[in-house]
Amino acid sequence: MSARRILIVGGVAGGASAAARIRRLDERARIVMFERGPYVSFANCGLPYYVGGEISRREDLLLHTPESLWDRFRIEARVRTEVVEVDRSARTVRVRDLAAGTESLEPYDALLLAPGSVPVRPPLPGWERPGHFVVRNVPDVDEIRSWIGAHAARRAVVVGGGYIGLEMTEQLHLRGLEVSLVEALPQVMAPLDPEMAGWLHRELRARGVDLHLGDPVVAFEEPGPGEAAAASVVRLRSGFRLPADVVILALGVRPEVTLARQAGLELGELGGIRVDDHLRTSDPHIWAVGDAIEVRDRVTGRWTLLPLAGPANRQGRVAADNICGRPSRYEGSWGTAILRLFGLVAGCTGVNERTLRRLGLPFEAVHLHPGSHAGYYPGAEPVALKVLFHPGTGRLWGAQVVGRDGVDKRVDVLATALQAGLTVDALADLELAYAPPFGSAKDPVNLAGMVGQNVRSGLVRPAQWHEVERLDPARALVVDVRSAEERRQGFIPGSVHIPLSQLRERLGELPRDREIIVACASGQRSYFAARILEQHGFRVRNLTGSYRTWSAARETPGAATWLMGGTGGRSPARG
Amino acid sequence: MSARRILIVGGVAGGASAAARIRRLDERARIVMFERGPYVSFANCGLPYYVGGEISRREDLLLHTPESLWDRFRIEARVRTEVVEVDRSARTVRVRDLAAGTESLEPYDALLLAPGSVPVRPPLPGWERPGHFVVRNVPDVDEIRSWIGAHAARRAVVVGGGYIGLEMTEQLHLRGLEVSLVEALPQVMAPLDPEMAGWLHRELRARGVDLHLGDPVVAFEEPGPGEAAAASVVRLRSGFRLPADVVILALGVRPEVTLARQAGLELGELGGIRVDDHLRTSDPHIWAVGDAIEVRDRVTGRWTLLPLAGPANRQGRVAADNICGRPSRYEGSWGTAILRLFGLVAGCTGVNERTLRRLGLPFEAVHLHPGSHAGYYPGAEPVALKVLFHPGTGRLWGAQVVGRDGVDKRVDVLATALQAGLTVDALADLELAYAPPFGSAKDPVNLAGMVGQNVRSGLVRPAQWHEVERLDPARALVVDVRSAEERRQGFIPGSVHIPLSQLRERLGELPRDREIIVACASGQRSYFAARILEQHGFRVRNLTGSYRTWSAARETPGAATWLMGGTGGRSPARG
Repeated sequence: MSARRILIVGGVAGGASAAARIRRLDERARIVMFERGPYVSFANCGLPYYVGGEISRREDLLLHTPESLWDRFRIEARVRTEVVEVDRSARTVRVRDLAAGTESLEPYDALLLAPGSVPVRPPLPGWERPGHFVVRNVPDVDEIRSWIGAHAARRAVVVGGGYIGLEMTEQLHLRGLEVSLVEALPQVMAPLDPEMAGWLHRELRARGVDLHLGDPVVAFEEPGPGEAAAASVVRLRSGFRLPADVVILALGVRPEVTLARQAGLELGELGGIRVDDHLRTSDPHIWAVGDAIEVRDRVTGRWTLLPLAGPANRQGRVAADNICGRPSRYEGSWGTAILRLFGLVAGCTGVNERTLRRLGLPFEAVHLHPGSHAGYYPGAEPVALKVLFHPGTGRLWGAQVVGRDGVDKRVDVLATALQAGLTVDALADLELAYAPPFGSAKDPVNLAGMVGQNVRSGLVRPAQWHEVERLDPARALVVDVRSAEERRQGFIPGSVHIPLSQLRERLGELPRDREIIVACASGQRSYFAARILEQHGFRVRNLTGSYRTWSAARETPGAATWLMGGTGGRSPARG
Repeated sequence: MSARRILIVGGVAGGASAAARIRRLDERARIVMFERGPYVSFANCGLPYYVGGEISRREDLLLHTPESLWDRFRIEARVRTEVVEVDRSARTVRVRDLAAGTESLEPYDALLLAPGSVPVRPPLPGWERPGHFVVRNVPDVDEIRSWIGAHAARRAVVVGGGYIGLEMTEQLHLRGLEVSLVEALPQVMAPLDPEMAGWLHRELRARGVDLHLGDPVVAFEEPGPGEAAAASVVRLRSGFRLPADVVILALGVRPEVTLARQAGLELGELGGIRVDDHLRTSDPHIWAVGDAIEVRDRVTGRWTLLPLAGPANRQGRVAADNICGRPSRYEGSWGTAILRLFGLVAGCTGVNERTLRRLGLPFEAVHLHPGSHAGYYPGAEPVALKVLFHPGTGRLWGAQVVGRDGVDKRVDVLATALQAGLTVDALADLELAYAPPFGSAKDPVNLAGMVGQNVRSGLVRPAQWHEVERLDPARALVVDVRSAEERRQGFIPGSVHIPLSQLRERLGELPRDREIIVACASGQRSYFAARILEQHGFRVRNLTGSYRTWSAARETPGAATWLMGGTGGRSPARG
């Protein structure tokens, strides 16, 4: 049997990962990888950090070169080479050498499509002028760096508050630029619910980022005479005009399906390539991986687009196995993701409350603010935790974590629990590693499980941050059980104040004809209060996450209406 | 119905946790907690850090006082009060006020025993002289600090290389003392296998700790004339004599069962209190939690003693539920634990290889050394990872992790996976949070799963570090595929050197009549090499963990014989 010819379109995460695995499975195969850009296997997720200078050596972004791929794996990697057509019946691809302008036909036994995604361009005038950049590959960041240098850029506008937009905001700020971040939605980092995204908004504002939420760009205007802006003046729907020396367009990505469409492969409703559990397309000789495909959301069972490096790499491995005749399945994605934003870290896994509401799925939500490790050991920081679960079965729907320490660990533990099909109750029993520098005897994840158990067993009924705004004072009363000192620093309007230590003596002050919603700083002392009141015959609910969650939600304009599926609000104009 | 009387013996982790939960479940119960020492609810695990000064404020160790327990929970906490007798038929306890010397009888409806453990004292002359300390409670660390100050102590000897011994070694060293650590076994931190403990030995030596392994103390001698030693001269079996200004006795703990034995409660073979899944003792009105009880090892199904704060706290909650008529189960422990030692962190979950060998259970072991996060982002550190699994089912037996960054996260993910019953294969598919500062597109845990898959599917056969020492050169050859530069820094004796990039051209140099064991730095490139060689018809195995694991094992004297159940070796004499 002659060696199989395996062609791969795209040489970054999924494509490169598959190529190396194929070689390990088949030493004789001819493996050819085509990459349109000048680099294979570069550190996609590192690009913003090279702009900011945290990654100082450009060569660190280049994980492999065509030479190193050949030396180690006998993979032929052809850069600046585009696959322009697939002839499925002949099993050939037409390949264009972009430098030489020549074309050739390459036969294949198996074809793997890993073309990635393309940045969404705004349907607006002006974005194609100089000084406007996307962040997709190494040449993009080369250009951004040289533009910033050449124009001594002082003011940047970042359009889009997703991962890339936030990372670029951070990195440009670290470089010393004044940064405006503009987001059409009322919140950044859409996988978070709005009250959790509120922490990011607060952090951005605290760092001096000029944040515009719920306020889309309507034009990139040419600077007027006397307007200092090397790139453009970014005009927002609200009327704000932001002069920019450099504009970063980070409006998200869409699957690159030009070739798949030309080849007549089946696409999904979301515009990605449709694959089966073996990552095979509608053609039995063609597989596809990465940002270009639609995957199953493992929580909801729906198709989704999830342009993340982790899944792409795993898909590369699975596709390689199947191409080499080793049956292997990729059953979908869980949406686990993480972001560092200045001193804050935010991560999530599974689905959020907004999605659950949209799909009409039953859920319960709990919020907590435990310390990242034992409070008596220096350096503990509160961790804001939101856990969503099915009220009937207790099965986890998803979780969100925001804080300054220990966030990535809790996200990963919760992601593992979610994938393993654990209930919220089981989180209480997880035996996690405890020593004072790392956690607590009751880890934040354990505490989330205990809160979940308390809710599911009826020991406490939670109230949510978004209910407090709309309370009818004739029917409910918020009781704040924090200390006087804490209350002085801010409180929920309309709440009455009875410190927990006085509660048992002051029961007579509380109404028995209305529901009582108890609140403290984090929801823990108010839980104690709820138990006292309930046992004394009051109708009571505990404000989950209490003051911290409630106040974080106020950082997101129109958070409650946005959560319920509305359009949310817009940041108040400032300055 | 009159209020129930619930008495609790012991006011630290399990006891305090139970008391607070009982109050939340039963506002009317009378809850009385008896603590022999002067403090309730102190930060047991924080004690070493107060000696070292990392925890600078003594009051931070005191999580609650009798006053705060009364204010918040209406718990009567009586310190310096010892329960000296239980009358099970009368359901009373006899209580002695240690200050006043008076006794009283207290009736109970439910009794919870949370007496903790007592430090093991060495059966040797001299340990009771001044300057010899255990680390059990706040008065102990008060005394250690004042002794060190009063005697201007310069030299410390720590006896015992468990968690407390290692933490005290670190903290005394941080205080500027010269520290000798003496351990009777050939390794510290017994839950680790010897090649993983080797990293701790290397760290201790690198920090200048005088480490004596496999060398038990035989006497604490009075210093001779002219011997400067404020406490004693510690004599080891090998003949070493270590002058000590302060001696820390950290030989482990045994369950405190004085009261349980007096009461005639059933004890287990390991000397702990026997309880059922509801943490009820052999008396239906008495429950027990914490260091004093035996628990099921969830991996092996055997009884074990596990004196850790995390399980104690969870047990407190479960006992409280059962005492209050809410059925709740504690089904055992998983042995998850963690330690920080200077710049290194070591953690584990489940059982180790030594235990699996002793019990004759079938297992496969893989070692890895991936980076703690993406290599192109600054600050990544290698993480030494060992994963043990059942070769037939793939079910995890346990895991060990050692490194300078990201260790606690991987331990917790692996602990969660173990508890959830995942296979090693499933680790490959875990969707963990990836951004450059936190992980890699293929997280170390994913990589462990991929290695496990490769082993289980027969793609590669692992060789172990302990096989390399005993290789018959007529039957096997070690081939080192690292670079020349790496090889110059050390290699496995008897190995031949062919860099991976030259392997395909130099196949003719390799024997076909012998098994080839390929090695590199971490086991990854040698896996690539193994795949090449196997596909070219060689008999080949991959040295799992390769040079890094092999060289770490050499830090543990007699590591291989100790792993197999022998006695191991002794550190070579130095200086």
